[in-house]
Amino acid sequence: MQRIAMLGSGFIGRFYAESIHGQRGRDRVVAIYARREESAKKFAEDYGCTFWSTDMEEVIAHPDVTMVCVALPNNLHEAAVMLCIKHKKAVVSTKPLGRNGAEALRMMQAIEGAGIFGGYLEDLCYTPKFLKSKQMVDNGALGRILWAKSRETHPGPHSNWFWDKEQAGGGCILDLGCHCIEIARNFIGKDIKPVEVMCWAATQVKPIEAEDHAIALVKYENGAIGQFEVSWTFRGGMDLRDEVMGTEGTIWMNNFLRTGFEVFTTGKGGDYVAEKAESNTGWLFPVGDEVNELGYNHMFTDMFRSVEEGTEPAETFYDGYVVNAIIDAAYKSAKTKLWEPVDLPVWRGQEGLTPVSTLIDYDADYYLIKEEVTHDGRHKVILKDKKTNEIIERDL
Amino acid sequence: MQRIAMLGSGFIGRFYAESIHGQRGRDRVVAIYARREESAKKFAEDYGCTFWSTDMEEVIAHPDVTMVCVALPNNLHEAAVMLCIKHKKAVVSTKPLGRNGAEALRMMQAIEGAGIFGGYLEDLCYTPKFLKSKQMVDNGALGRILWAKSRETHPGPHSNWFWDKEQAGGGCILDLGCHCIEIARNFIGKDIKPVEVMCWAATQVKPIEAEDHAIALVKYENGAIGQFEVSWTFRGGMDLRDEVMGTEGTIWMNNFLRTGFEVFTTGKGGDYVAEKAESNTGWLFPVGDEVNELGYNHMFTDMFRSVEEGTEPAETFYDGYVVNAIIDAAYKSAKTKLWEPVDLPVWRGQEGLTPVSTLIDYDADYYLIKEEVTHDGRHKVILKDKKTNEIIERDL
Amino acid sequence: MQRIAMLGSGFIGRFYAESIHGQRGRDRVVAIYARREESAKKFAEDYGCTFWSTDMEEVIAHPDVTMVCVALPNNLHEAAVMLCIKHKKAVVSTKPLGRNGAEALRMMQAIEGAGIFGGYLEDLCYTPKFLKSKQMVDNGALGRILWAKSRETHPGPHSNWFWDKEQAGGGCILDLGCHCIEIARNFIGKDIKPVEVMCWAATQVKPIEAEDHAIALVKYENGAIGQFEVSWTFRGGMDLRDEVMGTEGTIWMNNFLRTGFEVFTTGKGGDYVAEKAESNTGWLFPVGDEVNELGYNHMFTDMFRSVEEGTEPAETFYDGYVVNAIIDAAYKSAKTKLWEPVDLPVWRGQEGLTPVSTLIDYDADYYLIKEEVTHDGRHKVILKDKKTNEIIERDL
Amino acid sequence: MQRIAMLGSGFIGRFYAESIHGQRGRDRVVAIYARREESAKKFAEDYGCTFWSTDMEEVIAHPDVTMVCVALPNNLHEAAVMLCIKHKKAVVSTKPLGRNGAEALRMMQAIEGAGIFGGYLEDLCYTPKFLKSKQMVDNGALGRILWAKSRETHPGPHSNWFWDKEQAGGGCILDLGCHCIEIARNFIGKDIKPVEVMCWAATQVKPIEAEDHAIALVKYENGAIGQFEVSWTFRGGMDLRDEVMGTEGTIWMNNFLRTGFEVFTTGKGGDYVAEKAESNTGWLFPVGDEVNELGYNHMFTDMFRSVEEGTEPAETFYDGYVVNAIIDAAYKSAKTKLWEPVDLPVWRGQEGLTPVSTLIDYDADYYLIKEEVTHDGRHKVILKDKKTNEIIERDL
Repeated sequence: MQRIAMLGSGFIGRFYAESIHGQRGRDRVVAIYARREESAKKFAEDYGCTFWSTDMEEVIAHPDVTMVCVALPNNLHEAAVMLCIKHKKAVVSTKPLGRNGAEALRMMQAIEGAGIFGGYLEDLCYTPKFLKSKQMVDNGALGRILWAKSRETHPGPHSNWFWDKEQAGGGCILDLGCHCIEIARNFIGKDIKPVEVMCWAATQVKPIEAEDHAIALVKYENGAIGQFEVSWTFRGGMDLRDEVMGTEGTIWMNNFLRTGFEVFTTGKGGDYVAEKAESNTGWLFPVGDEVNELGYNHMFTDMFRSVEEGTEPAETFYDGYVVNAIIDAAYKSAKTKLWEPVDLPVWRGQEGLTPVSTLIDYDADYYLIKEEVTHDGRHKVILKDKKTNEIIERDL
Repeated sequence: MQRIAMLGSGFIGRFYAESIHGQRGRDRVVAIYARREESAKKFAEDYGCTFWSTDMEEVIAHPDVTMVCVALPNNLHEAAVMLCIKHKKAVVSTKPLGRNGAEALRMMQAIEGAGIFGGYLEDLCYTPKFLKSKQMVDNGALGRILWAKSRETHPGPHSNWFWDKEQAGGGCILDLGCHCIEIARNFIGKDIKPVEVMCWAATQVKPIEAEDHAIALVKYENGAIGQFEVSWTFRGGMDLRDEVMGTEGTIWMNNFLRTGFEVFTTGKGGDYVAEKAESNTGWLFPVGDEVNELGYNHMFTDMFRSVEEGTEPAETFYDGYVVNAIIDAAYKSAKTKLWEPVDLPVWRGQEGLTPVSTLIDYDADYYLIKEEVTHDGRHKVILKDKKTNEIIERDL
Repeated sequence: MQRIAMLGSGFIGRFYAESIHGQRGRDRVVAIYARREESAKKFAEDYGCTFWSTDMEEVIAHPDVTMVCVALPNNLHEAAVMLCIKHKKAVVSTKPLGRNGAEALRMMQAIEGAGIFGGYLEDLCYTPKFLKSKQMVDNGALGRILWAKSRETHPGPHSNWFWDKEQAGGGCILDLGCHCIEIARNFIGKDIKPVEVMCWAATQVKPIEAEDHAIALVKYENGAIGQFEVSWTFRGGMDLRDEVMGTEGTIWMNNFLRTGFEVFTTGKGGDYVAEKAESNTGWLFPVGDEVNELGYNHMFTDMFRSVEEGTEPAETFYDGYVVNAIIDAAYKSAKTKLWEPVDLPVWRGQEGLTPVSTLIDYDADYYLIKEEVTHDGRHKVILKDKKTNEIIERDL
Repeated sequence: MQRIAMLGSGFIGRFYAESIHGQRGRDRVVAIYARREESAKKFAEDYGCTFWSTDMEEVIAHPDVTMVCVALPNNLHEAAVMLCIKHKKAVVSTKPLGRNGAEALRMMQAIEGAGIFGGYLEDLCYTPKFLKSKQMVDNGALGRILWAKSRETHPGPHSNWFWDKEQAGGGCILDLGCHCIEIARNFIGKDIKPVEVMCWAATQVKPIEAEDHAIALVKYENGAIGQFEVSWTFRGGMDLRDEVMGTEGTIWMNNFLRTGFEVFTTGKGGDYVAEKAESNTGWLFPVGDEVNELGYNHMFTDMFRSVEEGTEPAETFYDGYVVNAIIDAAYKSAKTKLWEPVDLPVWRGQEGLTPVSTLIDYDADYYLIKEEVTHDGRHKVILKDKKTNEIIERDL
């Protein structure tokens, strides 16, 4: 059983607490830190915490607490983690780990140096669909992975600090791109080095300094390509879609807006107010069990089991740091308009990979381009002459 | 915390155990009864049970056990429940409750008489989509409910006893129709009396005595209509779809085969073996988290909380008995080819309802049939004269 | 080239004219009959007709006219067809053919007796998805057909005569059920005799005498089952879905409301008014090319080619008559609450079929119930002993 | 009526001919040119052409011919167009117009100089879904367009010349990207100047010199962004999806692989052979009416009407030239890894646009970032101080 100190009483802290206390969970949020007293008290009351304070260190240090959960604005992550280290408390942090790679690297090195458990709360790498997809990909169902794309767009976050570049460290790339990057990295392979990034970013709609829309490509050393599409300007709800292409298959995941649940209501039927302000009449697409669909259950289970069994969780501070490094390159690229290298002072995966050769022998003289049965029944191959490079068709 | 004795070590018993032990559950299956010693031992080993036996009563009576979970063939439910009563153990039973209404009524009256907790494990009334839909319907988002249909079809069950009419008590109506009936009943209203049933059933494909395909209509006292479509002959996977129509809205749920998760694989990529034998190459439609999507998590949470808090679970032995009574009428109707009344010696809902009047006043002289804006921009009403019954159009 | 006289200038007549004149069609609507002069004139102007009249016979008899298209309320079909016969004009009629089987039979026998071409404008048996499905079914892709269901529901028709039982002959069963019945009949086999019908019908919402919601089963002589679900009370648009189950496969068609085209609009963007009054903001699901998706193009092509080549179209007056006969049985059943026989004084298909035997030999001693690979890797068969009827499992 | 000379008897020429002769079309392919005599003869026989030849000029010059349809490999387009000009024949050309911008510009200037009709056969800008979407976007249903993405991927083309860089001029960017670019350009606005392109391209799977996978961003002068994703390595069928985001809405189109038509077949049912070699058992997703869904009907209707009425078709040689210019920039960018400017020596749209300001006044002191109702019922705004840039929340 884990006894958790929650740092932060906002939207995400409450979501975490509800997830941890949900179903028949044996773990409990026992302490809460919030900057404002009334927020801390309210949270403590709502979730049955035995201790609350507006002094972060006091909460972390509380003897009942076995693990600290960081659910604070991005600019406060590092200080919180350092306090956990000081008090030797296992820590899990919301995403992104830092505002940039340097912050994230310091956090990672600090917890590793201190021998403290550090889990990275990348919930979208724990959704049920993701977990099953990852297993399929690892089993080879898709062959060699060529491309992995993740898209996360919605009409913008709920709390004001997200919109403030200083506190958040950036805009939708930091807020949403961190998910997308780690999803793609999991499919392409965590041991495959991300080498460079090209990013377009713009502030198209909102009166803010940070970007509200961005698209980027992440090149991996083995020739695979990652892609993310993120925005705070999407209209229609929250769009969370991932796609993977391999030499032998394809995966399409829709995590939120099209999950086999469709409702039409004229709105005249009663007091009903829908969960999203975008629309509450007409066709609506609710999610059955948000906490589960968004990966919270599987994420906390992995974190708590790992700390109890002394193993590594699927998502660690090291992963958070790699993600931050890719984001840094994306921000740089958005400015310089160049493919920017990913700066990874620490790298623990494979090195020196090259793209796979595409020359598949058909026979001694030809490479195989394609074998197919056409709609008029011809069974044919398209071949390339190894010497002349001439491309021919041959009926079988 | 609940300490459960599982009766039955087959497919469903294992599924239950995995669900109970999943995530961070605080409850444990501590004892197992199976007819064959090696099955009991294997199950005990797999799920860490401290006690196993081929003597059912011994398992039920074991002092460590706080609740008994019946996961046996249908013909053994009643005996198991009676033993639970004898030993004063809370009991939850898999669906259907009995093979027929008489069995179910005896079980219900016995546990109620003994003051024992009795939960009906109707998992499909606990799926995340169902729970949210039910809440919407209860809040009036769909207006008055007119029709509720549930469809459950697949290529047939895994265990041999299902195919044996004596043990199972029937075919796919008992196996699958029990789900569908209770789903529709929840949407139409549990306090609305089901009055008669018309059922078509046939053995179209399988060399069995029981039906492998059936369709039925269940008429409710307030004029609403329930419908079920069940089959063991469907090709393509497991099809679980529910639909509800109300005067102000519509709900469509797809619980299994189209949930926003799509995979294509050539099958050449590796050792991958898919979860269903129907197809393991081409386009596949896996479910992310079966246990959650099928309602097991929410179901056991409701059962365990209810027994601990002394409240009624959402699905009780009474509900199981009503479902069995409707099934009895369906079987009778399939034989007599008549609308057969539902025999409910015990009924705890409303009585004497009549269908709602459809005469909506437009003004003193007319009833309103329809108001619409046509595609050429006319805003018009279609009205019915209260005296002459003449139907007219009027532009607004 | 066909020169068509359109009888009726309402919604369906206009839809037909637009379809015939659409794309690069070589055929032309040259004459129009309407009951009201201004309607006839307006239609003539809109579609470039050279002749209009409020005298139906005059229009039919016009020497320029090669074919008459009946687009009138149901109660006027018979008289129109009789006039076509009198003037020896090829005729195609909108659905349903008659208000009942007797009317339809008279029309069929009259045109056949006179040697006149008679086409039945059952557009939903000409949708692109239907045509391809039919071909697949005919090629055996689904094996033996077990069940064919068609669903057509929407918020009610546009013209007032539909709501008047005398003119229309009935409610949504006649209006929508005629489509569904013929769709199912095509899949099950037009030469398979429909033998009896069980129908539930009710007036749940509208202040009318006819039914606004109905569900029916149609039993075919070979044991296959047809099903229709029709309503004028559905909220959310027009729902046109067909499903077919065979021993070797399944088809699901969505013809209108989910065709891969999804639009979200806040409604603030401009003058945009959506095509359906049900909702014009939020998520909308338009159809790309209504005329094509609803089968009009392929239907008229078949009709015009057939009359020019002297062949039979896919849908004839005979088909219209069979459909009406099934509808008659449905109405009767809704009243008597009994399975009512389909009265077919003329029947041109197979006779005396019986359901297929389901006893598939596994070996000399056993019938095969099921062969499967379970999720734990067992490859097993479930068998039934030919003598004892005992059901056993055997690992392979 | 048009009398067409088809140049090219391959896959696309046949597809065009079938489309033109389909339904009740009044136009006819009357002459065919093919390089090989037997191909020309076979085509003439199949489609009832009265004239065939292996001499291209002879076919173009034939007095019966009113319009020439270029359905040749890319490297032969220019010569064919020049012959049409010589013989003063209206010409429509398959996509892409040229292998590069210079070729396309020469063709455009030559036909314009000669006063010849030149239509660009960009079928995917004529699909029913596209046409309706374009109308919605033009009506303002989506507000200001921010992003338009088009994706076209499949397992590779059927004819060998596509795989030969010299004949084709490139790989999947030329073959598929030309569609995607013009789709996005239509939504963003044809009068908005495309200014620069960033493209990633690779040969990941096929033993060819050209790219088999590419992703690119196209920046428009008003700040909107276009995106294309193209590949010849996709597994699972042909994936044609378009998405558009605007300030007031969203459009999602699936043109081919998910159109509401789903078939499962075990493959045991008969002789059935499916239309695509990727898979012919399991779940299949056919298209109802390919010719219509892919836009051929609407495209030829527009071309033939335009030439007869002396108007411009929706897609002209000018459009083809702009697309080729964007493709040139994409190829250059894929090599230089830089954002490359689009070189448009001729430009007929707006000039000098700048991105729209995102500063929306809330009141005298604040800009509005977001207004929302949160799930706990708060109605609040997020505002930005015009002077201090501070971001605050305010409850309403």
